[in-house]
Amino acid sequence: MTDTTDIAPAPAEGGGGRRSGGGRAARQAARLHSHAEWVPFITRTLAPFEVVSEESLALIEDNADTILERTGMWIRDYPHAIELFKAAGADVDDERVRFPKGLCRSIVQGSAPRQYTQRGRNPARNVEIGGMNTVFAPNYGSPFVRDLDRGRRYATLTDFENIVKLAYSSPYIHHSGGTVCEPVDVPVNKRHLDMVYSHIKYSDKPFMGSVTAKSRAQDSVDLARIAFGGDLADRTVMTSLINASSPLVWDATMLGAAEVYAENNQANIFTPFILAGAMAPVTVAGVAAQSLAEALVGMTFAQLVRPGAPVILGSFASSMSMQTGAPTFGTPEPSLVLYVMAALARRLGVPFRSGGGLCASKIADAQAAYESANTMQATILGGVNFVLHAAGWLEGGLSIGYEKFMMDCDQLGMMHTFVKGVDMSPNGQAVDAICDNDPGMHYLGNAHTLANFETAFYRSSIADNNSYEQWLEEGEHDANQRANLQWKKSLAEYEAPPLDTAIDEELREFVARRKAEMPDELG
Amino acid sequence: MTDTTDIAPAPAEGGGGRRSGGGRAARQAARLHSHAEWVPFITRTLAPFEVVSEESLALIEDNADTILERTGMWIRDYPHAIELFKAAGADVDDERVRFPKGLCRSIVQGSAPRQYTQRGRNPARNVEIGGMNTVFAPNYGSPFVRDLDRGRRYATLTDFENIVKLAYSSPYIHHSGGTVCEPVDVPVNKRHLDMVYSHIKYSDKPFMGSVTAKSRAQDSVDLARIAFGGDLADRTVMTSLINASSPLVWDATMLGAAEVYAENNQANIFTPFILAGAMAPVTVAGVAAQSLAEALVGMTFAQLVRPGAPVILGSFASSMSMQTGAPTFGTPEPSLVLYVMAALARRLGVPFRSGGGLCASKIADAQAAYESANTMQATILGGVNFVLHAAGWLEGGLSIGYEKFMMDCDQLGMMHTFVKGVDMSPNGQAVDAICDNDPGMHYLGNAHTLANFETAFYRSSIADNNSYEQWLEEGEHDANQRANLQWKKSLAEYEAPPLDTAIDEELREFVARRKAEMPDELG
Repeated sequence: MTDTTDIAPAPAEGGGGRRSGGGRAARQAARLHSHAEWVPFITRTLAPFEVVSEESLALIEDNADTILERTGMWIRDYPHAIELFKAAGADVDDERVRFPKGLCRSIVQGSAPRQYTQRGRNPARNVEIGGMNTVFAPNYGSPFVRDLDRGRRYATLTDFENIVKLAYSSPYIHHSGGTVCEPVDVPVNKRHLDMVYSHIKYSDKPFMGSVTAKSRAQDSVDLARIAFGGDLADRTVMTSLINASSPLVWDATMLGAAEVYAENNQANIFTPFILAGAMAPVTVAGVAAQSLAEALVGMTFAQLVRPGAPVILGSFASSMSMQTGAPTFGTPEPSLVLYVMAALARRLGVPFRSGGGLCASKIADAQAAYESANTMQATILGGVNFVLHAAGWLEGGLSIGYEKFMMDCDQLGMMHTFVKGVDMSPNGQAVDAICDNDPGMHYLGNAHTLANFETAFYRSSIADNNSYEQWLEEGEHDANQRANLQWKKSLAEYEAPPLDTAIDEELREFVARRKAEMPDELG
Repeated sequence: MTDTTDIAPAPAEGGGGRRSGGGRAARQAARLHSHAEWVPFITRTLAPFEVVSEESLALIEDNADTILERTGMWIRDYPHAIELFKAAGADVDDERVRFPKGLCRSIVQGSAPRQYTQRGRNPARNVEIGGMNTVFAPNYGSPFVRDLDRGRRYATLTDFENIVKLAYSSPYIHHSGGTVCEPVDVPVNKRHLDMVYSHIKYSDKPFMGSVTAKSRAQDSVDLARIAFGGDLADRTVMTSLINASSPLVWDATMLGAAEVYAENNQANIFTPFILAGAMAPVTVAGVAAQSLAEALVGMTFAQLVRPGAPVILGSFASSMSMQTGAPTFGTPEPSLVLYVMAALARRLGVPFRSGGGLCASKIADAQAAYESANTMQATILGGVNFVLHAAGWLEGGLSIGYEKFMMDCDQLGMMHTFVKGVDMSPNGQAVDAICDNDPGMHYLGNAHTLANFETAFYRSSIADNNSYEQWLEEGEHDANQRANLQWKKSLAEYEAPPLDTAIDEELREFVARRKAEMPDELG
């Protein structure tokens, strides 16, 4: 593993700007290490926005307990989990498991870490999950991709690699994610191998493992062991996505994967995936109580498998179109759910995952942007710790857009600046600068302006702020067209982070051997 | 004046849906009153988001006082204002006026109302400005308009009337605004007459008066007297926009207009208009201190003219493009300024104006939407009381877009839902609904879903949430194309609110007479 902790963070730029200064030797030295500009994950100074009182939160917690006691959860096809729950004090009736009030909470609070470090294979990319930190990861799970040149089509492994490369190249994406899109051209039972390998090969940021089968989770762990050199018991190098089959069902596939990760000290995000009105009641407080109940059971399972295994309380909730029954995003109700769930996670004392750049629009138009911005504002102001789908999401997740990815990254850059809050230093207060500037005199040449101008404002890579006339002359491009040029430039300039040749060979051999052991399955 | 307070608010719908039920007679009765769907202005239940501590706010207040004491303000070409300030205890040196620490604050706090009612000519449209209320008004001041059919062009009086009609027809715009666009086809010294008349004729919501000359403010007051039937001393029927010539200048035009309004008990918004780096330092705390200083002097002037005259503390701040020096919007720094200024207004105890759907984009693309949504989120979460530019704004205010107007109105609808917060009633908590629903069973046919579905979610008028295939079949429309159909439908269905024929004739006579008294001036 190459240690690149000696590389200082680059200035926060959204564009393709290269680090300046240091000369040719320094650039050569840097090239031996790592190539991507980056800024650290967000550590906020602002207190989160709250939409309900502590009393209301306590009521929702009690409602979650009532649900777990009265109705419980269906633990489908996974006797081992039922045994663990029973041994811990749950009431078992066939596959229905009911939990005495407070049981799950006390188990989770007894051993789940409030915050954990997820390591990247480049230690400079390590992220802290939990507390006041926010980590951005790309879109997850889309079978389709879209770009301005080729339109919408099934995603391929090449698309997958491209998104990993774009995420690696963005200074504002801290985590390489997981199934950034579904590489549909690879057999369904083998694509996890290519995906995990791609994250290791084309990025050095932390990543996620496969959850679509217990054996695939094990493959992910085995690949990570090769990449990180040995046992993982003392470190967490994967955070993986375990979705409930809401309402109130955990199934064998997800629990099986979660068990593999927990056994190996790897992190699981337990996420009720709620389309309100379909997988839960339509009301915010109802969605929150059910989500908390489901997530509590998932996190309890991980703690019973291995006390101290890192877990994240996840929440994914959408509203519903009354015309079509389709999920809708960027609307008020999911934002309210997010704020409530974030507060519940803080009270429980575990990291929280939700939000992202969610939208229902098929294309990266104004609908997509309004919806994504609304969701991202709640994500940031709510204090989400791990943000999946932070960039690229379109069409309720069915598609990832190349242009949308670049636009969202630009927005993530803005969020880095926003959460720093207000500089109240004497330079920030600027009293003397104001008092010494004659009324009516502009500040463009003022010494304070000149001293602060370069770093004063977030510089968008997408926005066109030129005059109308110049914009007209340059072809009346919209944001999509500018983003189209940017992702192509980013891919053209991409250079892979260094990877030890022996490790790379061992990874490739593992992938080849595992593929050879299985006949192709078509998805 | 027709009293329409007997008409109940329509359900919160973004679309052009008509109130259902009641039959033909009820519809005929309604037609005699008022035709537009509407929902009341926002009264929020959520506490505002705070980005700095009370200590930091006190520091910024002290900095504003230091600025007013050390440097003071240039009161340009308006001796009467200087006399008033001197008599109140200010230190006068020619046109430079310096204020002892605390003077402006004590004058403003001594007589400015915390909250006031602005009346519409239809009493059902009255709005409460201040406190926990938020009132939305359209775009202001654009010389250009844009729509999808005709592109960008100079605005005309017809465009002005169209925007007034669209604002009247939107349930989510509570206030008709002022110069919703500049009717460039009318001579510059006469267009205020047509503008004020249009607000009265084509809407019954509250509106703003002219501020471009003292005589035009007086014309506005005279027209309002006709419309509201007599003296205005006991009621506020206009809220007008008084912008500072930052840094630290108030000029005769603006103070002259403000004086007319204050004398007549009409409201003034005193707004420092800051492009940070040009009219103020680049830092957030610097912009805030200077803005507070400038606004305090404006509000003090109004209180000296007539103690108790309604005033609003305004703040308009943009960041700057480092490439071109152009203003930029939807970026983190203006949001931080907004949150700080909102908190300062609350501490001072006056209503606050800022925000809106601000953007720099020339068209209603993803850039426009990201920027507008980011600004609107800060507007809502910061607790702004009076929101100018809530709909239509493009190109840093140079242009108003018809499609953008409809998109923004849809967003305003969402904000109405968001600020209601979380329903914690038993029905909202939905515990029994969850407990009585078997795990794995969907909620689509659940009694709780059926009972709540119709009102559960905000229904966007712009978003397409259909399947990809259906969207494709319907022509792959983007948000602009859908909004284009909507504003045309809204204008086609527009019916003017009732206006007493005698009043209408008197207004028309006044406009004709005043126009005849002046030769045309070209702008």
